[in-house]
Amino acid sequence: MTMNDRIVAVYEVPGPAAEAERAANAIAFEETVEVPLDFPLPPAIRDGIVGRVGAVSPAAGGRFRAEVDFPARLAAGRVGTLLNLVFGNASIWPGVRLADLRLPDSLLAALPGPSHGVEGLRRLLGVRGRPLLATALKPMGSSDAEFAAAAAAFAAGGGDLVKDDQNIVDADFPAFKRRAGRVAEAVARENARSGRNCLYLPHMSGPQEELPARLDFVLGLGLRGVLVCPAIVGLDQVRALAAARRPLIMAHPAFSGVFYADRGHGIETSLYLGTLMRLIGADIAVFPNAGGRFAFTSEECRAIAGRCRAPLGPLAPIWPAPGGGMRLDNAAAMAKDFGPDAVWLVGGSLLMQPGGPEAGARAFRAAIESAFPANH
Amino acid sequence: MTMNDRIVAVYEVPGPAAEAERAANAIAFEETVEVPLDFPLPPAIRDGIVGRVGAVSPAAGGRFRAEVDFPARLAAGRVGTLLNLVFGNASIWPGVRLADLRLPDSLLAALPGPSHGVEGLRRLLGVRGRPLLATALKPMGSSDAEFAAAAAAFAAGGGDLVKDDQNIVDADFPAFKRRAGRVAEAVARENARSGRNCLYLPHMSGPQEELPARLDFVLGLGLRGVLVCPAIVGLDQVRALAAARRPLIMAHPAFSGVFYADRGHGIETSLYLGTLMRLIGADIAVFPNAGGRFAFTSEECRAIAGRCRAPLGPLAPIWPAPGGGMRLDNAAAMAKDFGPDAVWLVGGSLLMQPGGPEAGARAFRAAIESAFPANH
Repeated sequence: MTMNDRIVAVYEVPGPAAEAERAANAIAFEETVEVPLDFPLPPAIRDGIVGRVGAVSPAAGGRFRAEVDFPARLAAGRVGTLLNLVFGNASIWPGVRLADLRLPDSLLAALPGPSHGVEGLRRLLGVRGRPLLATALKPMGSSDAEFAAAAAAFAAGGGDLVKDDQNIVDADFPAFKRRAGRVAEAVARENARSGRNCLYLPHMSGPQEELPARLDFVLGLGLRGVLVCPAIVGLDQVRALAAARRPLIMAHPAFSGVFYADRGHGIETSLYLGTLMRLIGADIAVFPNAGGRFAFTSEECRAIAGRCRAPLGPLAPIWPAPGGGMRLDNAAAMAKDFGPDAVWLVGGSLLMQPGGPEAGARAFRAAIESAFPANH
Repeated sequence: MTMNDRIVAVYEVPGPAAEAERAANAIAFEETVEVPLDFPLPPAIRDGIVGRVGAVSPAAGGRFRAEVDFPARLAAGRVGTLLNLVFGNASIWPGVRLADLRLPDSLLAALPGPSHGVEGLRRLLGVRGRPLLATALKPMGSSDAEFAAAAAAFAAGGGDLVKDDQNIVDADFPAFKRRAGRVAEAVARENARSGRNCLYLPHMSGPQEELPARLDFVLGLGLRGVLVCPAIVGLDQVRALAAARRPLIMAHPAFSGVFYADRGHGIETSLYLGTLMRLIGADIAVFPNAGGRFAFTSEECRAIAGRCRAPLGPLAPIWPAPGGGMRLDNAAAMAKDFGPDAVWLVGGSLLMQPGGPEAGARAFRAAIESAFPANH
């Protein structure tokens, strides 16, 4: 990292212009030296540490976009330090939204990045030219045998990825081992029969101290990866798990809604659910699809997909995984919105198909095939 | 934990009443089975797993308060699982605010809780009957020697707690060791001279993998605890650090503002900054004081202090630490708002006193003494 590399953070702040300028200056101080503006700072600190306010320009709704740049060395190549730098205390100011983040390659190169990304997962699965079909094992409270049977049926119907619902709770590590082991075995048996390679991703939760051992257990079963909720286990914890063992990581947005659900505050939706997930090593970024149970617009969903795939230093493109409210009758819109490099995460409406998960997977695979006919 | 223990979560949701009822039912499903309301659930799951909607009653501003209770075993005695259960997907719904949480003693007993709390920290310091005086080492960019001198001067002036500013960045673990070691030594020397016991709390940041080793290093220096930003390192990571070594933990709100800064969404301010910090083992909960740079009201601040001290199963009361915008001329109001069991966290205005941190500490200690005269 050179001494001159800068991190550029773009904030949306309330207007009018003079107020936006004032907010940008306050952020530049608050996120670095955190002293009053009239504090007698030595010139080396004032010039070399305090954020620099760049362009401040009008945005929609009477708000303003303000650029503040910081010396890249203040992030020290670390995810937690970066988050603290660009949105630590600023997170507490109502009306401040982190809209964009431009990171120098030197910082990006210090992060592990996605272990598989779009291309790596296609190679693992042997699937080309079409979206992947994923589902979640639910409802919680089902027996291990029921989960195993549902996973195997989904695989038999042509599903690509089956993950634990993030709500499933195992009482302890032994219970997790029993359940995950049983599901893994059922899916492996079906894969051996079909010659396909459906991947099972158990939910990596549990006490923080146990997460590395749980990941080791999962990989020891021959599985390739996990589902994880970064807002719950910590973003840098996901980075650490990704760096240590390079698993396939599907990131789930549970507990993260506070960052983006209020559009006038927090972190821009696609920046959080796309870019940040990619920075910490996610290969698949789950988000609530437009038209589902959450208030996401099609435009926001396309922006997330865009951030998953846009150039980002040496980091591989990753898979957007819209989920929630996906139905057979909107398959054409899904195909158009997200293209072939997307994971279709279909829960309730797949499991509720007459004939169960196998028939459900078959129906959704047929919908995918008819939307992407050239590739099969 | 008995089979019948329940966790009661209280949500504020948009009205009118029928809409609030609908939202409460959606939360009860979404946070457990996460299937459509018409999914054919087996009776054992419908009755034993799905959240139960309790009272739904009008609240301020046309909103409603809705109680939803869940089987306590669905939290499995774990912080992350609890957060996921009560506010995982619900965090993504605009307008939903987790207003309160009532936890059975069986769940509270599974958490480590504060290692010191109000009484334990008083014993460590040998200070009775008055608030504690704390400051932050800043600005970032100062040399190790400058930080060490400022900390020693603050101790010499009668300060009780000196913490790293949460923005200070060490390039790596060796740099952290040098800096923290140097500050610790300077404060220890001053304590030996004065016979007092000012505590230095280094900021526990860095790559996730290094946190346990950093904590070991800090405790190995003879220090008693650390500053930590739970929203950055992860709430359950703090619980794990607290459980393993029982350090004194001062929790800083960096990056957590998204949870409460928008009052119509997220988690009620005092629930997040008071109760949740206590659940994960914080002994001191830092929050932005009313009248400072953030938009907190006096009422909100008193509510945080209230949650720090209210009965909470076997968990000890902890210290509210209002910070930001604290000035000598509002000492009387501070004394009245927070009483003796509070940490006065004074940064800029203490460091900027003519005569520096020693004179600043002396001036604020005098203000504390005159507000709590009977006890000295």
